[in-house]
Amino acid sequence: MNVGGKTYQTIWMEGSSVMMIHQNLLPFVFSIHECKTHWDTCMAITEMIVRGAGAIGAAAGFAMAQAYLSAPEEDMEDYIREARKDIESTRPTAKNLFYAVERVFEAGKLSRINAVTEAQRVALKDTEDSRNIGRFGSALMGKRTNILTHCNAGWLAFVDYGTALSPIYTARNEGKEVFVYVDETRPRGQGARLTAWELHNEKIPHLIIPDNAAAGLMASGKIDMVIVGADRIAQNGDVANKIGTLDRAIIAHFYGIPFYVAAPLTTFDAKCRNGKDILIEHRNPEEVLYQEGLDANGNLVRVLVCSPGSDAYNPAFDVTPAKLITGIITEKGIVKAQYQTIKKLLTNA
Amino acid sequence: MNVGGKTYQTIWMEGSSVMMIHQNLLPFVFSIHECKTHWDTCMAITEMIVRGAGAIGAAAGFAMAQAYLSAPEEDMEDYIREARKDIESTRPTAKNLFYAVERVFEAGKLSRINAVTEAQRVALKDTEDSRNIGRFGSALMGKRTNILTHCNAGWLAFVDYGTALSPIYTARNEGKEVFVYVDETRPRGQGARLTAWELHNEKIPHLIIPDNAAAGLMASGKIDMVIVGADRIAQNGDVANKIGTLDRAIIAHFYGIPFYVAAPLTTFDAKCRNGKDILIEHRNPEEVLYQEGLDANGNLVRVLVCSPGSDAYNPAFDVTPAKLITGIITEKGIVKAQYQTIKKLLTNA
Repeated sequence: MNVGGKTYQTIWMEGSSVMMIHQNLLPFVFSIHECKTHWDTCMAITEMIVRGAGAIGAAAGFAMAQAYLSAPEEDMEDYIREARKDIESTRPTAKNLFYAVERVFEAGKLSRINAVTEAQRVALKDTEDSRNIGRFGSALMGKRTNILTHCNAGWLAFVDYGTALSPIYTARNEGKEVFVYVDETRPRGQGARLTAWELHNEKIPHLIIPDNAAAGLMASGKIDMVIVGADRIAQNGDVANKIGTLDRAIIAHFYGIPFYVAAPLTTFDAKCRNGKDILIEHRNPEEVLYQEGLDANGNLVRVLVCSPGSDAYNPAFDVTPAKLITGIITEKGIVKAQYQTIKKLLTNA
Repeated sequence: MNVGGKTYQTIWMEGSSVMMIHQNLLPFVFSIHECKTHWDTCMAITEMIVRGAGAIGAAAGFAMAQAYLSAPEEDMEDYIREARKDIESTRPTAKNLFYAVERVFEAGKLSRINAVTEAQRVALKDTEDSRNIGRFGSALMGKRTNILTHCNAGWLAFVDYGTALSPIYTARNEGKEVFVYVDETRPRGQGARLTAWELHNEKIPHLIIPDNAAAGLMASGKIDMVIVGADRIAQNGDVANKIGTLDRAIIAHFYGIPFYVAAPLTTFDAKCRNGKDILIEHRNPEEVLYQEGLDANGNLVRVLVCSPGSDAYNPAFDVTPAKLITGIITEKGIVKAQYQTIKKLLTNA
């Protein structure tokens, strides 16, 4: 997608290095981060230099390929097993990560080069899926649509296009008018920072809103549709996504506003029967207590925004029950968040 | 209430000076601001050194009393009329302000001392109302209660005790166990800054949560009750309060969790038939785009937290429809958010 007039993807491989847009510095600094080893790539995942389901998947696949490239001949099997464990423990809630690692792990058994090719395939597949999600999602929109989105499920969260934002990009490309209300998405502010940055670069009209303004907007009839991404989808259609997604789903339901989840089939977890099986990651309370931003001199500064002496509660995700979801926009089409439909979809995938 | 082991009220009079906790510096600096003249007190209201419905009312009453104390014998009437105009123009939307000014203005016609006594009475009435709200609210709580609150309707917003937090203080004083989840309350963070500060000083166990975590908490059964304050209550029971209140009300309704509004009768607006009559103030988008906090050197710094080039939408309030409100906790008891009940209450007040 577009960054200051140039076209980029979120993550790619150059030689044995994994290159990625440094998402922790966005939106204030645009820079490319190089990971020379799979440990560097693991670190990049843990520290959220790369984040978002698809991008993490691609990163994990690339990391697995890097491990194959650097594995010593004599101790290959142990080294790879160890590397796999390291990669899988970076973000244990990210479903795509396991899928990508598994594929590249298996491919690498044939040859080191085969591991790299497979990792590239994982990344390419991600892009194609995102484009198809855009096509199906855009078909839901009329000539003028006001959309609310939460967190960042744009191209920065995938390799390109994204999921929740892909229908918006596609609709715009098809000549439709779209206006996007962007949830700030505290504590990490991925909406205010990443989604707004994407939309600004793509020149799509939008406004950042405090997360608290969602209900007021829906009550006033200003939202035609909510589209969010997903971190993991259970077999019954329950969706784990960024904290605050459930809030929006309940409110949209209350006002009868369509609530769509956009996600590739890789996000569905066949081992996960329903939302109760999804482990919610709890993150460092400092993400709530402190905020990072640009000061008047253009320096990135971390400031305490809460009362000193108080602690915070910081769950990364919540689970939206299937019954609150109007439909799931996948690369194969839009499906009901329903056990039978999803099982059929996964069987034919 | 308690601040570092000492007992304080938000605002009080010493001689002819009005003393107040400097709320603009909280939670990072605790200091007492002295207003020697009614002009100083006006300035303190305008600059939000004192804020919150009850505290503004008390400040305005004290300012009126200060004007009587400093009025020259020969030109008293003009001086007082001028002072009244100055005080009333500080925060023209604050309902309590006009009520307090009127009472002290009338009382002062008898004597200067009578004006001071009446201003003291206004402040004392605010404290008594808050205590009564605490008593009625605490009666709703069992031995152990987990409460979610939004924004700050604690003692800092009144003279003492507060409204939404008063039942919590009372329950604790009665030996009940309470745990408070404090909504951060973006964009201005009154929950994270003021409510957390109050609870920390009162040693009441609590955690600050991102506004986005409310639904997840309610879904997991961790919230027994929501209590919020109110800026204005219409005759039909619709409540205008800090942006995000409506979100919590809808979510609590979805999970069948009691949702209470705590407010003195002075918050009811007899001229306002329903929520549609309430004008929603839109504030500067910079409150969303920037955040103020303490840097590593202990300086208050303003940082940009959103993508540069994007704008924000910043409504100050939303309106929660009466049907989502379990009850309104007033100083006269708990009432249904319902036309007939409220009308009867106001007639007997």
